[in-house]
Amino acid sequence: MSDPPVLSFRPTAAQFAWTFGGNEPAARIQPGTVLRLWTEDCFAGRVRGKDDLVSQVCEFPFLNPQTGPFYVEGAEPGDTVAGHFIAIEPSRDWAASTTVPLFGALTSTHLTATLNDPLPEIVWLWELDRARRTCRFTARDSDFSAELPLNPMHGTVGVAPANLEVRSALVPDAFGGNMDTPEMRAGVTCYLGVNVPGALLSIGDGHARQGEGETCGVAVECAMDTVLAVELLKGVATPWPRLESDTHIMTTGSARPLEDAFRIAQVELVHWIAAEYGLSPMDAYQFVTQAVEAPLANVCDTNYTSVAKLRKDWLPGGAVMRGMHEQLGEIARVYRGG
Amino acid sequence: MSDPPVLSFRPTAAQFAWTFGGNEPAARIQPGTVLRLWTEDCFAGRVRGKDDLVSQVCEFPFLNPQTGPFYVEGAEPGDTVAGHFIAIEPSRDWAASTTVPLFGALTSTHLTATLNDPLPEIVWLWELDRARRTCRFTARDSDFSAELPLNPMHGTVGVAPANLEVRSALVPDAFGGNMDTPEMRAGVTCYLGVNVPGALLSIGDGHARQGEGETCGVAVECAMDTVLAVELLKGVATPWPRLESDTHIMTTGSARPLEDAFRIAQVELVHWIAAEYGLSPMDAYQFVTQAVEAPLANVCDTNYTSVAKLRKDWLPGGAVMRGMHEQLGEIARVYRGG
Amino acid sequence: MSDPPVLSFRPTAAQFAWTFGGNEPAARIQPGTVLRLWTEDCFAGRVRGKDDLVSQVCEFPFLNPQTGPFYVEGAEPGDTVAGHFIAIEPSRDWAASTTVPLFGALTSTHLTATLNDPLPEIVWLWELDRARRTCRFTARDSDFSAELPLNPMHGTVGVAPANLEVRSALVPDAFGGNMDTPEMRAGVTCYLGVNVPGALLSIGDGHARQGEGETCGVAVECAMDTVLAVELLKGVATPWPRLESDTHIMTTGSARPLEDAFRIAQVELVHWIAAEYGLSPMDAYQFVTQAVEAPLANVCDTNYTSVAKLRKDWLPGGAVMRGMHEQLGEIARVYRGG
Amino acid sequence: MSDPPVLSFRPTAAQFAWTFGGNEPAARIQPGTVLRLWTEDCFAGRVRGKDDLVSQVCEFPFLNPQTGPFYVEGAEPGDTVAGHFIAIEPSRDWAASTTVPLFGALTSTHLTATLNDPLPEIVWLWELDRARRTCRFTARDSDFSAELPLNPMHGTVGVAPANLEVRSALVPDAFGGNMDTPEMRAGVTCYLGVNVPGALLSIGDGHARQGEGETCGVAVECAMDTVLAVELLKGVATPWPRLESDTHIMTTGSARPLEDAFRIAQVELVHWIAAEYGLSPMDAYQFVTQAVEAPLANVCDTNYTSVAKLRKDWLPGGAVMRGMHEQLGEIARVYRGG
Repeated sequence: MSDPPVLSFRPTAAQFAWTFGGNEPAARIQPGTVLRLWTEDCFAGRVRGKDDLVSQVCEFPFLNPQTGPFYVEGAEPGDTVAGHFIAIEPSRDWAASTTVPLFGALTSTHLTATLNDPLPEIVWLWELDRARRTCRFTARDSDFSAELPLNPMHGTVGVAPANLEVRSALVPDAFGGNMDTPEMRAGVTCYLGVNVPGALLSIGDGHARQGEGETCGVAVECAMDTVLAVELLKGVATPWPRLESDTHIMTTGSARPLEDAFRIAQVELVHWIAAEYGLSPMDAYQFVTQAVEAPLANVCDTNYTSVAKLRKDWLPGGAVMRGMHEQLGEIARVYRGG
Repeated sequence: MSDPPVLSFRPTAAQFAWTFGGNEPAARIQPGTVLRLWTEDCFAGRVRGKDDLVSQVCEFPFLNPQTGPFYVEGAEPGDTVAGHFIAIEPSRDWAASTTVPLFGALTSTHLTATLNDPLPEIVWLWELDRARRTCRFTARDSDFSAELPLNPMHGTVGVAPANLEVRSALVPDAFGGNMDTPEMRAGVTCYLGVNVPGALLSIGDGHARQGEGETCGVAVECAMDTVLAVELLKGVATPWPRLESDTHIMTTGSARPLEDAFRIAQVELVHWIAAEYGLSPMDAYQFVTQAVEAPLANVCDTNYTSVAKLRKDWLPGGAVMRGMHEQLGEIARVYRGG
Repeated sequence: MSDPPVLSFRPTAAQFAWTFGGNEPAARIQPGTVLRLWTEDCFAGRVRGKDDLVSQVCEFPFLNPQTGPFYVEGAEPGDTVAGHFIAIEPSRDWAASTTVPLFGALTSTHLTATLNDPLPEIVWLWELDRARRTCRFTARDSDFSAELPLNPMHGTVGVAPANLEVRSALVPDAFGGNMDTPEMRAGVTCYLGVNVPGALLSIGDGHARQGEGETCGVAVECAMDTVLAVELLKGVATPWPRLESDTHIMTTGSARPLEDAFRIAQVELVHWIAAEYGLSPMDAYQFVTQAVEAPLANVCDTNYTSVAKLRKDWLPGGAVMRGMHEQLGEIARVYRGG
Repeated sequence: MSDPPVLSFRPTAAQFAWTFGGNEPAARIQPGTVLRLWTEDCFAGRVRGKDDLVSQVCEFPFLNPQTGPFYVEGAEPGDTVAGHFIAIEPSRDWAASTTVPLFGALTSTHLTATLNDPLPEIVWLWELDRARRTCRFTARDSDFSAELPLNPMHGTVGVAPANLEVRSALVPDAFGGNMDTPEMRAGVTCYLGVNVPGALLSIGDGHARQGEGETCGVAVECAMDTVLAVELLKGVATPWPRLESDTHIMTTGSARPLEDAFRIAQVELVHWIAAEYGLSPMDAYQFVTQAVEAPLANVCDTNYTSVAKLRKDWLPGGAVMRGMHEQLGEIARVYRGG
């Protein structure tokens, strides 16, 4: 296998994309290209200290800047783009998290509207130790401190939406977007159905780590140096984003209420394994019921995101999605060796 | 430590409890007692072959028989009973799963009422290999077959409810009940707040294994031989069921919509670690956000159940709940040695 | 028509029922009986002034006292009891409303759990002018005052639940209970499916008036003098409570999330008119879609309640439910004339 | 008062707008202008007979064509545009309704995803008698027929969204859009917060009539001849759409689950009357609780829409929204007299 084409792109502040859809491509790439990207954090880099409150330093709607979009040559509606994360590395030795007024799972919000007073707005700075692969939490109101493993991931990966829409980069939906799942880590392939010519893929919202559900609405947010191999599956439609690692296949659903997000992800998994392994839908329903893991992604965004996850070694041999994950893994190996 | 008192109880069909609350105690036990119990499956043992459809062989509302209740001497409202699962072992070499008309996550139900035709009613029999710790799925409509690990658990563990209520054994709520979480396995301590004198603890609904969310509404259902050590925490209130393993502390919430179940479990975890480690609620909110796992339990029962789960080695040393899990582990060791 | 049998019952505090199910009958009545009842307010009469905060003067779970239950001779599971409200009259010249901590639609609650501070607990006393048929609101924090029409109703009407359950009088569900719909006014017949022998009908929770949704969770609560004619429909099953006035037929659904309550009420209405008028379900779906009113009942209780309401004069002639509403209206006329 | 400027616009098929945002203005208008518009039905006029199934004759995403958008001179973010419906008249003597696969409240959908078979796709043609102000339903599967009152309304009224977004004309949200409330009838003023310069107001989706909740997802859809007076409130922000008739003020909320839509509308009404009448939020909460009507708009669209409605004669005298409704009523009178 010859070396894959490589494109490096580090956007300036003026080059950020703030939406899925509605942006001119940052570049056009051939399927098989490796992208070396830098992504800014969800605060557009403006939260740098404990006094940098989002409501004061950030400028709505300029949140969650995306790097891209990339026009994938040959991608057309009905196809699927596959993005394989070769590396996701924090590009700073610190990260920030905050509460944001009327945002998060354990607070009144603009949608779950109440008359209660809002929660206080607080910033936490996390120290990242990239050598030891840890990040350190320091409490604001006591001397509690704790070290957690780094688990770098992208909260936001998406393409231009269908139905002529342009969506905020804060939204997760069938086009991907701000799904905020910790499963979006290095080694994982993300499959996204194409809605417009060129797909217009972009990524952002790096997290040094995140719990499942992203409870307060904000993860350990940091800028990232990310390497992503991009491929194209012609003639394969993917209704909702799918993920694949060396060990698991995964589906996602993004909706409200949360049970609808769960339903979408589970129905997608049932249909997927029924199609790949010749199972009837009812047999696949039974098998998924007993075998699935259901880690929540986010319960705070415009839509909530649920993941359905199945171990590959519990399934018959043979690759899914035409072996695209294995093919991208090979590109990753060649790239790393290069 | 002296040998714990041991009580063995294998209910006859006439001795099953079908509700939480409303039943005379099967026995009265001292805190510290080890219970050796047998539980029938959720079908009351009536689904034994592929033609045993629930709608035909089961008699509503006589589903999900409970073994118990046990009156824990000294337990009063405001206390907490702790049940530690020493062993949960399938008592047969087969188990059954089914679809049930208008029940499950991926179908119209009595509550998510639609005009669509209901799904077909189907029975799957699973073969259990207790030596190899596996269970085998065989598809009904193709020659697909797969072997999954045994992961024996109890779907239903609960006490009598508050508010003068009597609830069906199919319901999960603040009193525990039909939470259907795979986390309820051997080695785990379950904490339940006491609502009535004696607590009236009972268990049932053994599953040879279950995926997260119990998608079709029915797990790999089997009768169980279960050993459970029971203790009492005087003066400790537990608003919603908590679990503790050697590696994790866990909270649960049961409600609809699913985001409310998530909110309850997460708020409970925030308050729990704030209280145990002297964190402010906002600091605890931030820490939980980045550290929590959120595996779904069920998205099919009367209330949906969400679990919030935190690694103990990410927390400062020192036991929670007054060291009750460690104390029960010691009882388990003595019991096993006896 | 001969005079109907009349039973008067004014419970003492010791005679209140606090649940649906689980209570001995207050009396046994023949179908066709007219009940002359007094019901205490939801606070058990303990909120009498602005300083009587629910959290201080009320004793949980002794809220929402019910008058009854009445054992209807001959009622068996599969039948329907019909209660026709001949009169609902406030028995005092004042009524109270309050906020209750962690209860209501526009606040964090025990189920929609957040970390926000709870709302303040406040009492409002309303003056009732029974002659002018008005009630007067007086603001606590300004000199705003307003007069609204009296619209006396019962928030709670129910029978013993199915499935061996006993439910708090605060719960609305398929057995009726705390539905909190302003449609439950004089002139209306309420149909409830029978789950246990004798049905065990009870009523309570009088409201001088209430908005749709009962937003803060508490209406203009007052004791009532109520006259209710009770009948029995043998062999008619009613899955969810139905109401009928001289002008409308109505169905109810009680569930969470609110769309499920809506779905239940609408599906029930579709099936009802399909059965009564020989429509196919799809034709009934279309007709209901264009003709239905959907006034919310409560969005604050354990289950939310949605009402589906159809004008009778838009339907073909001929009575529904075997003409029971007309028959009860005749009893009412005879009773009033007596 | 001099005659208002009048602009007539009947879009060709090529001139329809299919989104809110993302379109060039159809025209620029001065505040105070009367628009005489024609709107096509939601099917883009393609469902004309019983065999015209949406899935076959319509071309996604080209559904729900909008007439507009109109650039209101002087409108800037933070202002409010007010559209007063002077007349809404069916422009044909028939209208169509249908089921649409996986769309509607009483069916599995793309979001409430299940494994049930979809409902059949059926078309109903309604006959409109514009002189008698009625529309006639004819069942497909029996000889049932019924006449209902005409109640012409617009399902869709909106401006360009905030946050750089472009949304499908099928979506209701804070920008208005596809709210599908029967309250949007002649005589009503609709207030919409401005998000982009010129507001970019458009309307569409005429319904000859509709029940509350739009249960099957599709109303009695027809092309409309509509007259709309447009004004501008400088410096008045309107977070969610408001409506005002001669008798009522109304707020709307659009979200999922339905209780969130309810919460938004009710919180908006609480804040609105608190601001207009000097009430504290808690007093307003109490008053709204007892006085509000809560008719559902739609329980089928991407977001569900709930309306909160208050009688003006229960409020102190004095106009709201700076008397804009009265001012527009005056324009309507002058226009009609002209």
